Amino acid sequence: MFRFEIFAKDGDARTGRLVTPHGIIETPSFVAVGTLGSVTAMSVQDLKEIGTQVVISNTYHLHLQPGEDLIRQMGGLHRFMGWDGPLMTDSGGFQIFSLGAAKEHGVGKIAPIFPGGEDRGGHYDSKKGKPLVNIDETGATFTSYLDGSRRRFTPEGVIGIQMKLGADIILVLDECTSPLHDYAYTKAAMERTHRWSERSLKAFRENRDGLQALFGIVQGGAYRDLREESAAFISDRDFEGYAIGGSLGRSKEDMHQVLEWSIPLLQENRPRHLLGIGTVEDIFEIVKRGIDLFDCVAPTRLARTGTLFKKEEERFRIHIRNEKYKNDPLPVDEGCSCQTCSHYSRAYLRHMFLSGEPLGVRLAAIHNLHFLETLMGRIRKAIKNGRLREMHREWMEK
Amino acid sequence: MFRFEIFAKDGDARTGRLVTPHGIIETPSFVAVGTLGSVTAMSVQDLKEIGTQVVISNTYHLHLQPGEDLIRQMGGLHRFMGWDGPLMTDSGGFQIFSLGAAKEHGVGKIAPIFPGGEDRGGHYDSKKGKPLVNIDETGATFTSYLDGSRRRFTPEGVIGIQMKLGADIILVLDECTSPLHDYAYTKAAMERTHRWSERSLKAFRENRDGLQALFGIVQGGAYRDLREESAAFISDRDFEGYAIGGSLGRSKEDMHQVLEWSIPLLQENRPRHLLGIGTVEDIFEIVKRGIDLFDCVAPTRLARTGTLFKKEEERFRIHIRNEKYKNDPLPVDEGCSCQTCSHYSRAYLRHMFLSGEPLGVRLAAIHNLHFLETLMGRIRKAIKNGRLREMHREWMEK
Repeated sequence: MFRFEIFAKDGDARTGRLVTPHGIIETPSFVAVGTLGSVTAMSVQDLKEIGTQVVISNTYHLHLQPGEDLIRQMGGLHRFMGWDGPLMTDSGGFQIFSLGAAKEHGVGKIAPIFPGGEDRGGHYDSKKGKPLVNIDETGATFTSYLDGSRRRFTPEGVIGIQMKLGADIILVLDECTSPLHDYAYTKAAMERTHRWSERSLKAFRENRDGLQALFGIVQGGAYRDLREESAAFISDRDFEGYAIGGSLGRSKEDMHQVLEWSIPLLQENRPRHLLGIGTVEDIFEIVKRGIDLFDCVAPTRLARTGTLFKKEEERFRIHIRNEKYKNDPLPVDEGCSCQTCSHYSRAYLRHMFLSGEPLGVRLAAIHNLHFLETLMGRIRKAIKNGRLREMHREWMEK
Repeated sequence: MFRFEIFAKDGDARTGRLVTPHGIIETPSFVAVGTLGSVTAMSVQDLKEIGTQVVISNTYHLHLQPGEDLIRQMGGLHRFMGWDGPLMTDSGGFQIFSLGAAKEHGVGKIAPIFPGGEDRGGHYDSKKGKPLVNIDETGATFTSYLDGSRRRFTPEGVIGIQMKLGADIILVLDECTSPLHDYAYTKAAMERTHRWSERSLKAFRENRDGLQALFGIVQGGAYRDLREESAAFISDRDFEGYAIGGSLGRSKEDMHQVLEWSIPLLQENRPRHLLGIGTVEDIFEIVKRGIDLFDCVAPTRLARTGTLFKKEEERFRIHIRNEKYKNDPLPVDEGCSCQTCSHYSRAYLRHMFLSGEPLGVRLAAIHNLHFLETLMGRIRKAIKNGRLREMHREWMEK
C-alpha cells in the first residue's frame, strides 16, 4: 500500500510521489497541521479546494482530547475528521517535553526557540532549558495541560494509540531535546530515542495491518557526530520513512547543517520529513537538501494575526492590518486563484481583522495554505526541469 | 427595479417574492445578519451554498468601522463584502440607543429584554431603562463603542450613509424605545420617529437612484393606540416597505399583539419586516400574522455556543457540548443536507467545541442558517398549499 518513487533529482533535491492507502502525495510536499483534527476553521472541502495533499494531527493532543478510543469507535481519525486523503500523526514526543514543561513551570507560552521562529506548537522553559517531565527507560510521565492529570507515554503505547487513530503515516515516540541541552544530555536522549525506536518497530510489526507506515525520527541536536550516528542508526532500521526532529540548533545555518549531516546517511529511496519547519525561505533550503515532506504551523498561525504570504514582499509576508491597505481594492495577490483572492480585497480583509470578524482568519489561512501548495507545485516542476537553483534565486531577488 | 408580488395567502400569512436590483427574495424569508459585512466566518460561497437569500448589515457599525466613505470608494457594500445578492442595511437606530447606553454606564453586556431572549444585537441599561444618548429634534449624539469619540446621526445623515453603502433596502433612522420606557416617553419617541421618517423620505427622494428602496419603521412600544397610530402614519407615506421595530413588549404574547395591532393598518401590497426576531417558535407566529421578512442573530449567536437547530428537540435546539453526544456517530440532523451534516458527526462537532477549534462555530452556523432556509422554504410551500396551520401544529408536537 506504500510506495515512494523518485521521478527526478536536481542536486540533492528530488521530486516524486508517495503512494498511501488514502491517495498520492506528490513530493516535495507541505503537510498541513491539523493538531486536533481540524485546520483553522477550514472544512475538508476547503482543504481540497486549496489543494492540500496531506494533513498531520497530533497524538498527544488527540490522546488527551477526545481520546484515541473514542476516535477508533468513530471509525478512525480519517472518518472522524471527514478527511479521506493522506493523513499523518506526530507521536507527541515534542509536545510532552515542551507543553509539559510550560505547564509545570506555570508559564503559558514561551517564544519558540527554533530557527525561523516557527516551532512544532510547543514550548520550552527558556530559563532552565530542561523540560520538566519524568522520563525513564520505559517511557515518560507527564501532566495533561487540560486537567493536570498524570499521563504516561511509552514507545509501545504511542504506537498503540496511533494504530487506533489510524493515520496513514505514524511516528515513533522520541525524546525531544532543546538547543539549551548540553552534549551529554543530548547524547543520552538520542540513545534512549534509538532504543525506543526499536521497541516502537517491534510493537508496530506485531500489530501492523499494512495500512500504516511507520517513520523513525533522527535526533542528536546540533551536534554533528550525534546527528550522523542517529541518521545511520535510523536508516539501518526497517522504517518506511524518516523524520528529522529535535533541536535544529539556534540559527538557520545550524538547521541547514543538521540536514547536511543527517540526510546523506539516510536511505535514498525513503521519504524524509522535516518536523516543524516551513517558512518560504526555509522551504527552498530544506528542499535543496533533500527533504520530501515538512509540516509547519506558520501559515495558519500567521493567518491568525493577519499576516499573509506574498511573493514580492519582505520575508514573503504582508501585514494586512497595516494602514496602507485601508482603501486598497486589490486582492492580496493579483496572480493568486484562491477563494480569498478571487473574492475579497485587501481593504475588506483589513476591515475583517480590525473589527475582529472571524472570517478574516479563515480567509487568511485559505490564502496562506493555497500559496504554499502553489509554491510546492512550482518547486516540483522546477526540480523536474533542473531549474530549482534558478527558481530559488528568482524568489530571493527583491 | 423593486416589485413585491404576493402569490398566495393562507389566513394572514402570505408568500410571494420581492424583486430587488440584486435578485429575488422569495418571501417569507429569513434575513441573515452580517453586521460588519460578514456572517460568522462564512464566505459568500458558503452563504450561497446554504441558500441564503438576503443579508442585513448595520449602518451604525459600518459607519464606525471602516466608514461609509471607504466602502463607497471600494465600490459599495455589495462589492466590498463580495455579496452580489439582495442586501439590506439597518439604520443603526437600535444600536445608538442600546450600545451607547451600555458604554456610558460602563456595562459590557446586559441580558436582552426582548421576548424570546433574542435582541437586535444591542444592550439596554436594565437599571434605569433609559439609554444614555443625547437626543434632540434634529438627531442623536452618541459615543462610539470603539474609541469613545462623539458621533452624530440625523435622519438625513443616515440616509446619506446608507446611500453610500448602497444596499438594496435601507431603513429610516428611528428612536428605539425599551419595554422600560413609559407611555409618555414612548409616545414622544414615536412622534419624533414619525417626523424623522418624513425627513428621511425627503432626503431619500432628493437623491434616489432607483437602485435602493426605503422602508419606514413602525414604533409605539407595546401600546395599542401608539402602534395603531404609528402603523397608519407609516403606511400613509411613500415607503417601499415597512419594518416593525422598537419594544415588542415583555413576552411573546406582547409581541404577537404588537403585530396584530400594526399589520392590519399597513398597506397589503408592501413587504413587512420584523426587526430582530427569529427563533423557530417565533417564525411560525410572525409569519401567521403576515410578516414577510425578519432578521435575527440567534442562528449565528447560538452557533457560537454550540447550540444547533433540530426539529424534534426541546425549543428546536441541541447543545452539542452535551456529554451524550460524546460518541454519537450521527450527523446533527440525519435529514439535513447541509455541509455540516453531510460530513461531520455529533461526536466530531462536540470535540471541536470542547477543544475550542474554530471550525466548530463555523459548522454550527452553517447548519443553523441552512436549517432556517430549509424551514422557510417549507413554510412558503405550506402557505401556497393552504397548510400553514397544519405544518405549525405538526412542528409544535413533541
